[in-house]
Amino acid sequence: MKVIIVGGVAGGASCAARLRRLDEKIEILMVERGPFVSYANCGLPYYVGGSIEEESKLLVATEQMFKVIFNMDCRTNCEVVGIAAKEKTVKLKNLLSGEVTTEKYDKLVLSPGAAPVRPPLPGLELPGIFSVRTVADSKNIKEWLDRDTDNSVGNSFTGVDKVSRPKKAVVIGGGFIGLEMAENLVERALNVTLIEKLDQVMPPLDPEMARIVKRYMKKHGIAVKTGDGVAGFRKGEQGDLEVITEKGKVYNADIVIMSIGVKPELELAKMAGIKVGELGGIRVDEHMVTSDPDILAVGDAVEVKDFVTGQWALIPLAGPANRQGRIAADVIGGRKSKFRGTQGTSICKLFGAAIAQTGVSEKTLKKLGDTDYEKVYLFPNSHAGYYPGAKMLIVKAIFRKSDGKLLGAQVLGEDGVTKRIDSFAMAIQMGCTVYDLEESELCYAPPFGSAKDPVNFAGMIAANILRGDMPVVHWDSLGDSFLLDVRNPPEVAADPVPGAVNIPLPQLRSRLAELPKDKQIASFCRSAQRSYYATRILLQNGFRAVNISGSMLARSIM
Amino acid sequence: MKVIIVGGVAGGASCAARLRRLDEKIEILMVERGPFVSYANCGLPYYVGGSIEEESKLLVATEQMFKVIFNMDCRTNCEVVGIAAKEKTVKLKNLLSGEVTTEKYDKLVLSPGAAPVRPPLPGLELPGIFSVRTVADSKNIKEWLDRDTDNSVGNSFTGVDKVSRPKKAVVIGGGFIGLEMAENLVERALNVTLIEKLDQVMPPLDPEMARIVKRYMKKHGIAVKTGDGVAGFRKGEQGDLEVITEKGKVYNADIVIMSIGVKPELELAKMAGIKVGELGGIRVDEHMVTSDPDILAVGDAVEVKDFVTGQWALIPLAGPANRQGRIAADVIGGRKSKFRGTQGTSICKLFGAAIAQTGVSEKTLKKLGDTDYEKVYLFPNSHAGYYPGAKMLIVKAIFRKSDGKLLGAQVLGEDGVTKRIDSFAMAIQMGCTVYDLEESELCYAPPFGSAKDPVNFAGMIAANILRGDMPVVHWDSLGDSFLLDVRNPPEVAADPVPGAVNIPLPQLRSRLAELPKDKQIASFCRSAQRSYYATRILLQNGFRAVNISGSMLARSIM
Repeated sequence: MKVIIVGGVAGGASCAARLRRLDEKIEILMVERGPFVSYANCGLPYYVGGSIEEESKLLVATEQMFKVIFNMDCRTNCEVVGIAAKEKTVKLKNLLSGEVTTEKYDKLVLSPGAAPVRPPLPGLELPGIFSVRTVADSKNIKEWLDRDTDNSVGNSFTGVDKVSRPKKAVVIGGGFIGLEMAENLVERALNVTLIEKLDQVMPPLDPEMARIVKRYMKKHGIAVKTGDGVAGFRKGEQGDLEVITEKGKVYNADIVIMSIGVKPELELAKMAGIKVGELGGIRVDEHMVTSDPDILAVGDAVEVKDFVTGQWALIPLAGPANRQGRIAADVIGGRKSKFRGTQGTSICKLFGAAIAQTGVSEKTLKKLGDTDYEKVYLFPNSHAGYYPGAKMLIVKAIFRKSDGKLLGAQVLGEDGVTKRIDSFAMAIQMGCTVYDLEESELCYAPPFGSAKDPVNFAGMIAANILRGDMPVVHWDSLGDSFLLDVRNPPEVAADPVPGAVNIPLPQLRSRLAELPKDKQIASFCRSAQRSYYATRILLQNGFRAVNISGSMLARSIM
Repeated sequence: MKVIIVGGVAGGASCAARLRRLDEKIEILMVERGPFVSYANCGLPYYVGGSIEEESKLLVATEQMFKVIFNMDCRTNCEVVGIAAKEKTVKLKNLLSGEVTTEKYDKLVLSPGAAPVRPPLPGLELPGIFSVRTVADSKNIKEWLDRDTDNSVGNSFTGVDKVSRPKKAVVIGGGFIGLEMAENLVERALNVTLIEKLDQVMPPLDPEMARIVKRYMKKHGIAVKTGDGVAGFRKGEQGDLEVITEKGKVYNADIVIMSIGVKPELELAKMAGIKVGELGGIRVDEHMVTSDPDILAVGDAVEVKDFVTGQWALIPLAGPANRQGRIAADVIGGRKSKFRGTQGTSICKLFGAAIAQTGVSEKTLKKLGDTDYEKVYLFPNSHAGYYPGAKMLIVKAIFRKSDGKLLGAQVLGEDGVTKRIDSFAMAIQMGCTVYDLEESELCYAPPFGSAKDPVNFAGMIAANILRGDMPVVHWDSLGDSFLLDVRNPPEVAADPVPGAVNIPLPQLRSRLAELPKDKQIASFCRSAQRSYYATRILLQNGFRAVNISGSMLARSIM
């Protein structure tokens, strides 16, 4: 048995190593077009930014290691230039020597990854415009940024083409790579503008959560321009670049980072004649087998099933790519392993904060026409408020109305984000309901959490809704509710809500007569806790009462 | 309906607030013996240490708040001095006025907590010996530590009874409070000795994991004396205290902290004539109802079911106490809520590190005579090794051999502990197997994790064992195995293992002839990864091969 694995990073490398562990006898050939196997592509922005200082740190495993430890044929700078699926052969080109050879396979594993989207924009070929996919890309960016290392501020006698160290960067695209690059360019003291065609940054988030991210970026000096796409580039009069947007704006830049997303590399799929899905990724079954039973595919190039919705999706993430590689190896080795789909669990560092999500977003549910869900917003402390360093977390949890199952969660904050998002991620994997979350037993000591963890709180609030104890509304669905503000007068004075009637919670029981019986009363306070108490009081006194989820804190992000 | 709740912290306070939210009409009386309700007892060590600066921060909710917001009768400094269960009355004593009154109840909730164990040791009444349970305790400790605030180093003319600021502390007991107090006294620049009667600190941990904690404490300047109990105290010649141990050692101290555990407060149970379990806690059913159907009990005073083993246990933790309080309120309010038991999820800060556990320990399984389990040790990075700041985590995971269910996990480290322990905690709650852990999708970006998270790794290693892909042994069960060291020669030279034969992994395939076919070959390397590869090679070549779990890193903690 001979297996050829095309692509030596993440999915491909995982597959190769696992395959050898499963079977000493299989002949394995792993080929990689680039000069490195198994490099840390998730680390590239940090190499540009300087927090990863040495290029060598990015090289997780070497060609030599695959050869010696895993006893396989491993070839870098080696490109597949043809696949004859019927004959089960591939044509390989040595990119250094130009030599082309043909190799036979019994099983072929494709792990070509996804390439940065580069639309045919005028000026895209101008020097100073970069993508971030390979070690070479990040080296090129670093070199471009380091061009003038004498740190001179320029000399007016040398003319417009004088070389000076880049000071202005435009990052195009506000996804993971865009945000990471923007941060890392700020760390290098560049003036950064980020342009995003969509109305929000960080597409996996819901828009209101993304707005918080945008605000946070601005706070850290990044000019964020959402709702405007790039139309083209031209050379500016100062020798710099000009980025022209669809709305006709012009941004000057000494360097441009293109990070408007990635799309599956399909050349190999076309050569092999295997099926491609509607989203433009290689279509595989749950065993990672393509439409050709002897060809498997893994990683960013394949379409995956969304674990929560069951829909096909393109979710390029390193964790799932590695899992898929292992599963492909298992399957080739004769095991029945299945890929359970992707939850989209992901996280992004942004200065002192982390932005994380798992499961489905509200906008995806809306897109699917799914209305059997409810959501809660909460703003708990990352740990006991009385212990120093507690930060406010911003949590949105989405769950099924009919059965209480957790569907998705989004968590932002400067402390304790990973603790919560991973709890939610594990919960979604295991089919947790909000009732389970209520009684989760997570670690607590004052420096790390609270006796009722934010994950418990999310469960309690959601369960209160589903049990009918606390009907909720959101700021965008108030209808003609009577708005009841139960904050204390100084809070109201500092941030009043037009049209709301103020009855501080401590006075509520004695002032019930002031409230209408014929209207829905929507209560709010700062964080929706006091208004929850108010809602309980009102409901039990015969009022039609609802709580405004997240209250003033949620209002601030709408 | 009238409900009296005895004890206004954690369980009691949660119960009272929840009860009012459920029912506006119920008459609620909450009494608390101490001067404060709902104070942050978990914060007391940090108030002593100074990281919590103001006493007011410890007061989470006030008597006034319970009265006004929750419309209940709330009395501090009010002690229950009698319970007539048949008449359903309690006798209450106002500790300030001395007045005794009788109150009728329909339902009585007992939340008296657990008191520090204070065995009848000679000298225990000497000034300078403290427990840490109440705000008053911590204030007394602070005052004692601050006695001589002029910071003078003493004056030889003032005699032996001169007052000088305490410099030497002895902490007795190495559980949560003991460790937290030891740390906080070090933070106040005291010289700290910790004495623990057991052979290990941190009783919830297994001994080998506790040894790492002990080493870490020593590294931070704490003298840790395990395996020796305290026998008594006497006044020393320098005006300080002398702590005499069972082994006859004498330790001088300017302050002594007694933290040898807590035991349920049973006075109320005795007054009420309700059943007490064999472990000395109030016995309740899953609805928190005692042997008297009109008396419920919650918090540290009750025995709970261990969620994993199903055995009765005393596990005094704030999270479960709060959950129990809510459940008691639900039950009184007519709902069917049940307490699912306690997993013992807990965490302790220790200088820059965290010590955490969830589920059952190996020693508990041994005590129960349970042999249907296996364990793995792993030592992964807290996040991608190429990103700065990664620290080694020390993880022990315990799982059922017969069905792969995760039973318990212990995690130590200076970074990323909460992310993992909470994933494990949620996993145990939901009945996760190690096969589920293999395919968990936890958040990953280089600053926060790895594409294969430590939780995944634990699952993969365990699943490899259960599938028979990687039989393991531990250092204490090698028998007469042939010991194969697959590290590279410089590693072997730096830390050799007597009796082991060294064949570096890259040479293994070509040197198989040197290995015996008639003996079990136990391979090891640094972290058990290369020796896993070696084990796979050997197994497939007809050898009886096993991997030594955790390899040299595990050996260093045995």
